[in-house]
This record gives sequence, C-alpha cells and structure tokens, in this order.
Amino acid sequence: MNRITELLGIKYPIIQGGMVWCSGWKLASAVSNAGGLGVIGSGSMYPDVLREHIRKCKLATDKPFAVNLPLLYPQISDHIDIIIEEKVPIVITSAGSPAKYTHLFKSQGIKVVHVVAGVKFARKCEEAGVDAIVAEGFEAGGHNGADETTTMVLIPLVRKHTHLPLIAAGGIATGRAMLAAMILGAEGVQMGTRFAATVESSAHQAFKNEILKTGEGGTMLALKKIGAVRLIKNAFYQRVAEAEAQGATAEELSQLLGRGRAKKGMFEGDTEEGELEIGQVAALVDEIKPVNQIFEDILAEYRQAVEEVLNVWKP
Amino acid sequence: MNRITELLGIKYPIIQGGMVWCSGWKLASAVSNAGGLGVIGSGSMYPDVLREHIRKCKLATDKPFAVNLPLLYPQISDHIDIIIEEKVPIVITSAGSPAKYTHLFKSQGIKVVHVVAGVKFARKCEEAGVDAIVAEGFEAGGHNGADETTTMVLIPLVRKHTHLPLIAAGGIATGRAMLAAMILGAEGVQMGTRFAATVESSAHQAFKNEILKTGEGGTMLALKKIGAVRLIKNAFYQRVAEAEAQGATAEELSQLLGRGRAKKGMFEGDTEEGELEIGQVAALVDEIKPVNQIFEDILAEYRQAVEEVLNVWKP
Repeated sequence: MNRITELLGIKYPIIQGGMVWCSGWKLASAVSNAGGLGVIGSGSMYPDVLREHIRKCKLATDKPFAVNLPLLYPQISDHIDIIIEEKVPIVITSAGSPAKYTHLFKSQGIKVVHVVAGVKFARKCEEAGVDAIVAEGFEAGGHNGADETTTMVLIPLVRKHTHLPLIAAGGIATGRAMLAAMILGAEGVQMGTRFAATVESSAHQAFKNEILKTGEGGTMLALKKIGAVRLIKNAFYQRVAEAEAQGATAEELSQLLGRGRAKKGMFEGDTEEGELEIGQVAALVDEIKPVNQIFEDILAEYRQAVEEVLNVWKP
Repeated sequence: MNRITELLGIKYPIIQGGMVWCSGWKLASAVSNAGGLGVIGSGSMYPDVLREHIRKCKLATDKPFAVNLPLLYPQISDHIDIIIEEKVPIVITSAGSPAKYTHLFKSQGIKVVHVVAGVKFARKCEEAGVDAIVAEGFEAGGHNGADETTTMVLIPLVRKHTHLPLIAAGGIATGRAMLAAMILGAEGVQMGTRFAATVESSAHQAFKNEILKTGEGGTMLALKKIGAVRLIKNAFYQRVAEAEAQGATAEELSQLLGRGRAKKGMFEGDTEEGELEIGQVAALVDEIKPVNQIFEDILAEYRQAVEEVLNVWKP
C-alpha cells in the first residue's frame, strides 16, 4: 500500500496511460482487472461512444477505472456530463488548467488526477485541489510539454516542489524502470506505450506491429509550433521534419497535419500516412502480450530489481 | 567494489564529466582525491596547456584521473602524444569513432572509456576493445546525440545490447538519481553539471551563478543542424532559436555561432552573448560547493535512497 494505491483503490500502483485510439473499454477493464488502473482515453471518442465504453467497462470489471479527459476536447461539457452521470470513479485531466473542472468533479465524489510536464503546473494542481498528479517526461509518446524536461529530471524536481501523490510517466515500460521512478520520488507509474502494444489495445494491428519495429531513435518530437507530439518516424513524419527544417509556420504545419491523421494511423492502420504516437521506450517493447502477462512481467522485474538493490554497489 | 571501480581504480563509481572550460587540473584532482574519477577536459586546451594541466594534476593527486579527448579536436595527434608521454592512466574519448585510437591507447597501457548516445555506437565500442562506455542521455549538457534518447530509456537499452561496463550520464546530480541509474543497469555515473558548479571548477563565477539560476525549462537542445548542443536560454540562444524556427541553414547557424563563443560564455563570463553548455539537471543544483562536500552529499543521498527501497511499495 502507498498513497497512490490507497487513493485510487488499486492493488498495484500501475496506471495505464489514456491514449487516443488505443485505450477503449477492453484495455481499461483488462488493466483494472489485473490490479492496475485502467483508463479510457476519451480524446478520440464522440460523447455517445464514450458513454458506451464506460458502460461496457463497468460490465467488464468491478474494479476502479478512470476516464482520461483532454481539456481542449471540443465537446468537453458533454463528456463531463457523461462522466458524472455514469459515476466514473476517477478522471484524469490533461492539456488544460486544473483549476477549471477539478472542483466540479470533486463535488460529485470523483477523484481527479491531472497530467503535468513541469513544476509550475504541479503547483497549480495543488492549489486547485487535485488529488494526485501524473508528471510526464519528454520521452513519453503523444502530446508533450514545451520545456522538454525528461523523466529523470522531472520526477525529482516535481517531488521537491509539491507534496501531491506523484505518478511518473515517460520512458517506463518495465518493472526495473518502475523501481527507478519510485527511487526518483514517484509513488506510482503510468505506462502508455507498453499497453498500446497489448492484445486488448484497440490500436490497429499494423500500428501494434510498428511499435514492435520501432527501435532506438525511431521516434521524434514533432510539430512543436502547433503542440509538440512524439511520433514514429514514418513517411508523414518525414514530411513534417522536412517542412520544419525549412522553417514552416504553424499554419503550414496545421495544413500538413490536416484532420483525422491520428485515427488514420493508429486506428485504421495506415502506418505511412497516419500519425503514430508512441514513446521512446517502444525501443524496449518487442512483443504483443495480453495485459495479464504484462502485469506478471512488470511485477517480476520489479521484485528482481528490489532484490538487486541489496547487491548493488555500496559506499 | 564493482566493475567500474575495479577497472578505473577508484573508490566510488562517480565520474566527473570532462567539460570544456570547466574541468582543469583543479577540479579533476579534487574529484580524484575525493574518491571519484577526475577528468581533465582537453577540448578547450591547446596542447601545451593540456600538458601543464596533466602535470599539475599529477602533483595534486596520486589517485587515477583521466583526460577527456573529443576525437574531432583539430590538434588531436599532439593531444594523443601528450597523453601517452605523460602516462595518463585513463582516456575518455568522445565525438568520433572508437575504432580509431583505442588500440593505440591500449597498447600503451592506457584504459579507454568511450562516450556514446546509443546502442549502435556502444556495439562499435565493444568491437573496438574499449574498456567501458559512458551512455549519455538527451538531458545532458553540451554536445548530444541525434536520436534524443533520454537516460531513462538509453541505459536499459544499452544494458540490453552490450556487456561492457556501463556509466550513465545525463540528468544525474544526486545520490538518488545515481541509485536510479544503477537500477536501470548502470555500474557508475558521470556527472557534469553538478561539478561545473563547484568551487574547484574553472568556470567563470558568472557562469556558475547562471547554473544556480537555471530552473526547469532553462536549457534547450540547439544547433541541431551543425551538431546538437544543450544551452542555457540566454540572449545568444534566443537568436539561435529564432533563426532555427525560420529555417536557418547549417551555414547560417555556423555564422551565427562564430568562433570562441563557448570560451566567451563559460570561461570569460559573458552570460548573454556566450555559449553556456549545461544539463537540464541544473534545475536541481542551487548551491556552489567544494568537491569534497558534493561527494559527502551524494553518498549520503545514495545511502538514504538504498534504505528507502526497503520501504518502497512492494507487490
């Protein structure tokens, strides 16, 4: 038991990252059933689709689960209504100010976790009454902070400046990295990439295969002028990189991105022209496994790493 | 004892990063006397200056020390001759192929450590007969790999693919981060930023003060088209960032950089127009201390972190 397992009512302090197009009810319920916190990624769902996923998730697990809510979502108030109506126990907010909806959710008995990429926002979370924070480093997949602070630096920094229960994200796919994050000051970890490449993930099989193929240097932070996002270096990325090297403006990049490219890549499986969001740690992921097996692996690695500390170099 | 302390003949597996304009004989001998490996940064020294620093270092300590040798140094053969003539026990090569000089140094009884930013070069080091490697993550100060792999991802990746004794660098300034790096698979750590801000560092006092002032997001990787380098965001950096955003070519960036800018910033103390190379972890450094005190701090933090693992969350 620690503050994270207690707060969220879970057995293991392992949170599945809420990911567009990858984390529907199947993945979320599998993670919650395995003893972690499953998270439905609402950013890629229309309101009625979100409601359906929440209902299916409740049928598939009697354990706590969460909905990830990017605060820049266009139909945000519909999503909020549904989360409250369906009595979702935990919401993980991101990409916006924690001051805006935390009070509303908490007044409804919903626990609020907010995703930050730095100390300034971590402090705002504290002021806003958020229950816990996810601090996400530069190596993470998908959308990412402008400061580019890595997990190794971010976690001790956030730990130093806030007292909130702290979940580390970015670069963590193994029990070994989980222990390292705990030593740096975290009380739990969030893993996205590791769970995107599971049997239960709703990612297209072609995208899952791309994750396995992604090696060192296979991702890059792109589109910084319109909102940094870590992408697999496919044909679409190469065009973005070329445009950026030539000084493309935000407008030109928005046009190059167009609409629906994330769905095209991650859900429809167009691995060359789609937007494929994944973390650097994909380089360490080389098998698609069921969620249960991943929990067994992580916990075994974690236990082994704890044992090894006893044999590590000592002054 | 572990493979790193044994190989290098040191008490603690703490290696001081070889840094241009910061690490002369004073810093190197202080670190070696404290039980770590002091490193003279030869990249900013003319051959006769390097010889003087080596001789003074030998007078100031009877412990092993090293010279850092960037392989793109213009007068490289003079530097190599001096290192051999002066019987420097260890050389840390960087910024070039380990295949080129490793055999020569080893035939002279000099141990060779090579700095890499990824698995591909780590393997080349193994083939070249290098004794140990430093794997340096994206968060590190100064020159940096093109893949942008962070320490959290890089260390397990390199550990997985090579058997060489492994020193982690990038984002490490405390005993806590040192233990995290050991858990990730390292057998020693290299710290640059922490030692740049010491009494014994030859950095200009104004630069040392800038390091203390540098907070979260205070550095950025710049000049990627002509060799990525992590810089403090001063007036010079801002001009570079602006030029890059507008698509400046390698030639234009070289012209903007000009000559002698690192010396101007780090050695002469022009903190606005100079090039100030430092790691992200500067955000965690807020006091200039003597080297001895830093060793005491790091070892105390490390011991405490080991203790805490016994109390950390357990499955």
